[in-house]
Amino acid sequence: MTEPSCIFCQIIAGDAPAHKVYEDEFCLAFLDIHPLADFHTLVIPKHHVARVEDCNDTSAAALGVAVKRVSRIIHELTGNKDFNILLANGQQAGQEVWHSHYHFIPREGRQDGLGYRWKTGRLPSQDAINDFCSKALSFYVYA
Amino acid sequence: MTEPSCIFCQIIAGDAPAHKVYEDEFCLAFLDIHPLADFHTLVIPKHHVARVEDCNDTSAAALGVAVKRVSRIIHELTGNKDFNILLANGQQAGQEVWHSHYHFIPREGRQDGLGYRWKTGRLPSQDAINDFCSKALSFYVYA
Repeated sequence: MTEPSCIFCQIIAGDAPAHKVYEDEFCLAFLDIHPLADFHTLVIPKHHVARVEDCNDTSAAALGVAVKRVSRIIHELTGNKDFNILLANGQQAGQEVWHSHYHFIPREGRQDGLGYRWKTGRLPSQDAINDFCSKALSFYVYA
Repeated sequence: MTEPSCIFCQIIAGDAPAHKVYEDEFCLAFLDIHPLADFHTLVIPKHHVARVEDCNDTSAAALGVAVKRVSRIIHELTGNKDFNILLANGQQAGQEVWHSHYHFIPREGRQDGLGYRWKTGRLPSQDAINDFCSKALSFYVYA
């Protein structure tokens, strides 16, 4: 499935330019044109989905393998071997392009000026935990 | 492969407690005990690896499917349907537990006090791009 108005689908189709880093049957990786660090790379499924939970299983599994392979590429080719992988799922999480994508952001430690402004909180009540986890575990049965 | 001194391997083995959210043959998800938001969840491969590029292909593919399934669970069960997925690969990226893991962090928009302090930069030189991308594309051959 492709979405003609989607810039990432246009890149996949070869109708928009990109600096390609990795490609297989189901996934593509290319440099972000607004990088947060040198060689900031995006990894996307070729099958257009806005949100990660909408991937089919083939696409999701291929994305898992592509993430590992692009990680190997970045580890081997960039001077700094460490990086964050980040995905924004939905507007409230900062998603701006509506074709699900992972960011690979090379890091040079806390002095590199990149990072998070996230403070640790506390677990919710035991009742809330029990309710969430019992519903969660019944979603997909592991046998 | 398990690492007896690893807290996540101990959770997988049932030797340390956790609030489980999802489990299959290759992956496990459970609540972070130092949450950045309610129902902040971790997803890990059962096969112990410190870094994501060290996953074998079976584990990597299973992790891709687990990420999608846990995304579906968080989407359905939390009031706010949006979240960030974050992985810290290496010390310079903020990794603290040396068993590779994805964070799922539910978000309530920019007013929730969570987020990044990351500024957009510019692409490196065309020569540097060409060098990186040509080496990257030869890493895994897509046929």
